[in-house]
Amino acid sequence: MLQISGTYTDLYQLTMAQVHYLNHNNQTAVFDYFFRKLPFKNGYVIFSGLESLLEALEQFQFTTQDLDYLQQQGFDSSFINYLKDFKFKGAIYSVQEGELVFPTQPVLQVKASLIEAQLIETILLNYLNFQTLIATKASRIRQVAPQSTLIDFGMRRAQAMGAYFASRAAFIGGFDTTSNVKAAADFKIPVTGTMAHAFVQSYDSELEAFQSYAQAHPQNCILLIDTYNCLKSGLPNAIKVAKSLQQQGEQLKGIRIDSGDLAYLSQQCRQQLDAEGLTEVKIAVSNQLDEYVIKSLQEQNAPIDVYGVGTNLVIGHPDAALDGVYKLAYANQKPRLKLSENIAKSTLPHQKQVYRLRDQNQQLIGANIIAKAEEQPDFNQMHHPFDLTKTMPLDQLKFEALLQPVMLNGKRQQAPTPLVDIKRFAEQQLAELPAEYKRFTNPHLYKVGLSTALLEAREKLRTTYKS
Amino acid sequence: MLQISGTYTDLYQLTMAQVHYLNHNNQTAVFDYFFRKLPFKNGYVIFSGLESLLEALEQFQFTTQDLDYLQQQGFDSSFINYLKDFKFKGAIYSVQEGELVFPTQPVLQVKASLIEAQLIETILLNYLNFQTLIATKASRIRQVAPQSTLIDFGMRRAQAMGAYFASRAAFIGGFDTTSNVKAAADFKIPVTGTMAHAFVQSYDSELEAFQSYAQAHPQNCILLIDTYNCLKSGLPNAIKVAKSLQQQGEQLKGIRIDSGDLAYLSQQCRQQLDAEGLTEVKIAVSNQLDEYVIKSLQEQNAPIDVYGVGTNLVIGHPDAALDGVYKLAYANQKPRLKLSENIAKSTLPHQKQVYRLRDQNQQLIGANIIAKAEEQPDFNQMHHPFDLTKTMPLDQLKFEALLQPVMLNGKRQQAPTPLVDIKRFAEQQLAELPAEYKRFTNPHLYKVGLSTALLEAREKLRTTYKS
Repeated sequence: MLQISGTYTDLYQLTMAQVHYLNHNNQTAVFDYFFRKLPFKNGYVIFSGLESLLEALEQFQFTTQDLDYLQQQGFDSSFINYLKDFKFKGAIYSVQEGELVFPTQPVLQVKASLIEAQLIETILLNYLNFQTLIATKASRIRQVAPQSTLIDFGMRRAQAMGAYFASRAAFIGGFDTTSNVKAAADFKIPVTGTMAHAFVQSYDSELEAFQSYAQAHPQNCILLIDTYNCLKSGLPNAIKVAKSLQQQGEQLKGIRIDSGDLAYLSQQCRQQLDAEGLTEVKIAVSNQLDEYVIKSLQEQNAPIDVYGVGTNLVIGHPDAALDGVYKLAYANQKPRLKLSENIAKSTLPHQKQVYRLRDQNQQLIGANIIAKAEEQPDFNQMHHPFDLTKTMPLDQLKFEALLQPVMLNGKRQQAPTPLVDIKRFAEQQLAELPAEYKRFTNPHLYKVGLSTALLEAREKLRTTYKS
Repeated sequence: MLQISGTYTDLYQLTMAQVHYLNHNNQTAVFDYFFRKLPFKNGYVIFSGLESLLEALEQFQFTTQDLDYLQQQGFDSSFINYLKDFKFKGAIYSVQEGELVFPTQPVLQVKASLIEAQLIETILLNYLNFQTLIATKASRIRQVAPQSTLIDFGMRRAQAMGAYFASRAAFIGGFDTTSNVKAAADFKIPVTGTMAHAFVQSYDSELEAFQSYAQAHPQNCILLIDTYNCLKSGLPNAIKVAKSLQQQGEQLKGIRIDSGDLAYLSQQCRQQLDAEGLTEVKIAVSNQLDEYVIKSLQEQNAPIDVYGVGTNLVIGHPDAALDGVYKLAYANQKPRLKLSENIAKSTLPHQKQVYRLRDQNQQLIGANIIAKAEEQPDFNQMHHPFDLTKTMPLDQLKFEALLQPVMLNGKRQQAPTPLVDIKRFAEQQLAELPAEYKRFTNPHLYKVGLSTALLEAREKLRTTYKS
């Protein structure tokens, strides 16, 4: 059984920390968490995983077992002694979970002693990269089916225990329910399910299988109709069951189709159900769905009420990883830079703040500016982060600070946010975002720029380091 | 914190189980675990995850918290009472972990009461699909770099807790070490690491950073040389440190390059290190590596000793999921079939055995045959599973049964196999496999066929079900 503790990390975090410890090199450091590339060619990313991270940081400690293992690996005993009492006591500045975020901007900053900041890097990246990826994937699916019920069915093909956070993030990104009972219970996600082919097969007849299920779950019965033949067998049997449920004063909730031409089959099913007066019976579909298949089904006006999405959702197909990184911006009382031949891979020094820009009517203009934390939010231009010739004037705009302290001295600043509130916040943010940034294909580029002071600080450091 | 217990499942397993429970429909059932498509267009798949699954099954139970949750969800109290004492008491027949497996063949069979077999489906798929995918990915990487040291660096971009089993499976598939401390400790994988850019940046000079690290870890020092400039700064500083280590009687273990043209830079570094007499200093590289990049570096004779592979390994890029399924083959004293318009999606009825075919000299002929479990292994032909017109004569061959009981009455039949033995077994299996099945591109198709009796049983059931 996997236990999340101090060794849930890369070895080098510990070997580097030991060097810092032995050299008493442990002044305040600032690290930025950000990503460089929009996944799925989407126009925005939904930041997700913050609450999971904060919970993990509050509990983060080295167990006796951890310390024994590190001793066997030859770590210094004084350092192991230090780890025995280790607690994260630093600060986390972050955008809200569910916020829309964009490449280059710091999404979260850690300000802590160098050792603390280093020891939490791996778990931070491991938690935030994945949930942010999946919330964004879920949101893409939600965008193409705004009125449909979306169910996460992905647990069996998920990357093992990745399933747990996948279901959480899918809910934030716009899914309604999950089949994953553990995640549902722990995160208070509505849990739903239908039935499997094996259930139908285990009976000598399909009708008998349907009747047994309906009898045991009369109020929550979705019949899987494609085990033998969807239209010739499954649908007529489902209609029989629906009618006998009606006689008991109950209502068949739905049918599910898991193979074949979902557009054609759903149309046929809807017609026949309606002809029998079963207009309330919902049609659910599944089978390798993703936002492209669902978009196509929607465009064909397939009368589908419920989409069950599995593999492609929970693995974040096709990207399957977000390229989020954790880069040093400040240490030992100096701003720090990672130099690169490619300016787009250089990092941004100093502790920073990110502002969202709004016009006088509070409308979003599709741009964020990154500035040094101590700057007054009163900028008259912003600079392209990598193309030094490009600037954008900022006239009559309002600046909304996005990075807020969510943890100080290792303590959360608010009670944990319920998941449903995070989901609602993401919905509100999306509702505000102009349509062109939500476009399915080739969305408009949301601009992220630098303040003049930040640009100058970076260029000065680049020049120093190059010489 | 995620706890693996009875609710680590899809809801429908529980709703279906309740129906079976209330109807006393709980006779012996047989389910097959198999997959249909070779991932990565590879010629073989390395079965992985069995020990993790067996361990989970031995511990599988419903906690008080689980039962309370299910009560809130409206489950029947008699069924909840049944779950209170639930233990998996069935049988698992499986190929060995580390065995090479192919589409269509049952890789593992569960023979248990219908409810038991259903309740473990999700965890079985969740564990086996992912580890099998990653072991196979790791093996592809190992194939292109047979002599190199391969390190798993993927934790930060892994699908959250998927990292844990990814590191385990990567080791089975051919990796030497991991940076994932938790997985290393729990699974006894050698653990290694280097240093991060942030470490170098946190010092005022690169040389000072290198010296500090070398002082703290003189016997295990790999210096990251590309924070500022690989050849102008990192390498000369690393050479200085190597020489001062030599004066202390120590040896710089290596340098790491994490950006730029790895072929060019490694050649330059090797030349300069050798010119300084530092022939023992290893060169490690990283940066978005996969089997294609590594193959190209090997073909260029880049003098690289160590490859650190991250994201593309641990997410199993680009497939990111194995399409493994769990299908009912027998229930209520009858063989069972899932019918499909597409014969390739029909399942195979009955409890089965899988035999590997060898010639009289014990050489593999590149074929397995699936038969009914009760058949004598003495077949003179095998049938293509989906093209009924194709048969292959089997003359003078030997039949090696691959499915063996690994759990009976819920008890393991052997002590857990150490991970290193599983890895070695996979290596031996691969060494035996003829080269054409291991080809990087367009590998030869390993044949999987059916015995005449099994084919006839399936066709008879198909005919019955269709009418």
